[in-house]
Amino acid sequence: MVVSQRVLSGMQPSGRLHLGNLLGALENWKKLQEHNECFFFVADWHALSTNYEDTRQLKTFVREILIDWLAAGINPDRATVFIQSHVPEHAILNLLLSMITPVSWLERNPTYKEKQEQIEGRDLHTYGFLGYPVLQAADILLYKADAVPVGKDQLPHLELTREIARRFNSLYSPVLVEPKEMLTQFPKVMGTDGRKMSKSYGNTINLSDSEPEVRQKLKTMVTDPARVRRKDPGNPEVCAVFDFHKIYSGSDVIKQIDKECRTAEIGCIDCKSLVANTMVEQLAPIWESRKSLEANPKRLEDIVQSGGEHATKVSQQTLSEVKEAMKI
Amino acid sequence: MVVSQRVLSGMQPSGRLHLGNLLGALENWKKLQEHNECFFFVADWHALSTNYEDTRQLKTFVREILIDWLAAGINPDRATVFIQSHVPEHAILNLLLSMITPVSWLERNPTYKEKQEQIEGRDLHTYGFLGYPVLQAADILLYKADAVPVGKDQLPHLELTREIARRFNSLYSPVLVEPKEMLTQFPKVMGTDGRKMSKSYGNTINLSDSEPEVRQKLKTMVTDPARVRRKDPGNPEVCAVFDFHKIYSGSDVIKQIDKECRTAEIGCIDCKSLVANTMVEQLAPIWESRKSLEANPKRLEDIVQSGGEHATKVSQQTLSEVKEAMKI
Repeated sequence: MVVSQRVLSGMQPSGRLHLGNLLGALENWKKLQEHNECFFFVADWHALSTNYEDTRQLKTFVREILIDWLAAGINPDRATVFIQSHVPEHAILNLLLSMITPVSWLERNPTYKEKQEQIEGRDLHTYGFLGYPVLQAADILLYKADAVPVGKDQLPHLELTREIARRFNSLYSPVLVEPKEMLTQFPKVMGTDGRKMSKSYGNTINLSDSEPEVRQKLKTMVTDPARVRRKDPGNPEVCAVFDFHKIYSGSDVIKQIDKECRTAEIGCIDCKSLVANTMVEQLAPIWESRKSLEANPKRLEDIVQSGGEHATKVSQQTLSEVKEAMKI
Repeated sequence: MVVSQRVLSGMQPSGRLHLGNLLGALENWKKLQEHNECFFFVADWHALSTNYEDTRQLKTFVREILIDWLAAGINPDRATVFIQSHVPEHAILNLLLSMITPVSWLERNPTYKEKQEQIEGRDLHTYGFLGYPVLQAADILLYKADAVPVGKDQLPHLELTREIARRFNSLYSPVLVEPKEMLTQFPKVMGTDGRKMSKSYGNTINLSDSEPEVRQKLKTMVTDPARVRRKDPGNPEVCAVFDFHKIYSGSDVIKQIDKECRTAEIGCIDCKSLVANTMVEQLAPIWESRKSLEANPKRLEDIVQSGGEHATKVSQQTLSEVKEAMKI
């Protein structure tokens, strides 16, 4: 039996979503919304913590990510879909929690220094970037979320949220809920260059790509590098296209490819064309839905407005309990 | 000619105000409100940065400081009097400015380490305490204040506000106003133990003290320590009671005391009684006004409500320009 709980998750608006996001986070969200009270939010304030210098595309990204979510099957009648900056309570709780959060907890956060080193050419030594986990704690605690779907790498962040909640509850009174992790196995989706699909590698197939674009991207996709000529036998185990087959094709086709690739009975072009057909078939409803959402901006506005109103109501309730507990 | 400008100033609600606050900040505010558009706010969120552990009295302190301000002559028909936490825009601008403020700017803030060392028994290594100047910058910049009355010790804070404003204006567009300092000479008011009057020394005469309390505090006040017996000549230059004469008495009385103390013609008890009379005379209208405000809590509510509404209107305007500039 699946017990219903309140689940919260967010994404930064940093560009169009790709198959990695769809097969990872979004498919998981779709399952979660069936049996839980879900809050899904676009973390536009968080996006500033790493991208404050160039915000020209932020509004477009927010709009695009919402279209991607809804087109992929996030159902605003089941889940509360909203934009973080529409709910000022996030900023207020962030400020209040900042008063009780030791700087040392933030400095020891493993992603703090890691990201500073990874992301080049941008100055991430800002107060807001250091306080990223405090804002994240506010996001979660404001909704008294029971559970948060996270990948393994985000566990330290969630633990920090729990530590902040515990500190608040012990300093004042037990108002905040310590969220459990909902450890999620995200399938590793390969990009067109054979590396993990990621926007920063430029190897993505996006939900917003057109059919010709998807077919073209698959056509030029990297396969087993040892299979140079048509007649060379290939090794599906090292071929990213075969990974797509495992996701998109039926077991018959998978078996057939696995055999015929190794014996060079099938060439890469035909193999790719097979997977392209199924992929296109499965993306088609998303494209349809994207088109209809794009043609109807009022619908999108209505969804985030009513989501924002519901989120505000819930978060105002928590914030008033927080203020009561802090005696302010 | 006095040019009207927008002036902003705030105080933390940390207890009842004393003569040092009256003769320093409040007398200055009263002058400022005559010819300027003033915003005076109770910085209750700031109070959490050093006092998050014990907030039991915070609400009382907020109420008391407002009564003290109004009783002392802050005129809500001339100045906008409001409570920081009633204007959520402070928290939002704080969050947005945090994204562009380097941690190093905050770490080099001289009062950061100083206060951490001074205030014992409390843990000030919090994220909120580190970010104190960011919230202060938000407080000021939200109202596009032209000028901020500051003592010399607060100049580094104000410079930080200007630096944050400059950084914002250069990253996005010139929306924020760099506030000028209004360097204010605050008279050094002595406490009943001969040290500077300060709540932390427990040597204050409060605006809320009754007449018998004031007279009693003066009666037991420290004078020239070398004047042990009545017949010993005294030295007004080292006597804190004489400092009060310089503030409260007419020039005739000051001259007379200056002479008669040195020759032991007048004793400390009589000298104190003289200054007590004038002090009581000058405090009487404040006491009257305090009584009437205490008897009429609705009046206080109305003042902070309408002040809060005006402050919200002004700050929403700035915040919408800020968001426009940041493209969020």
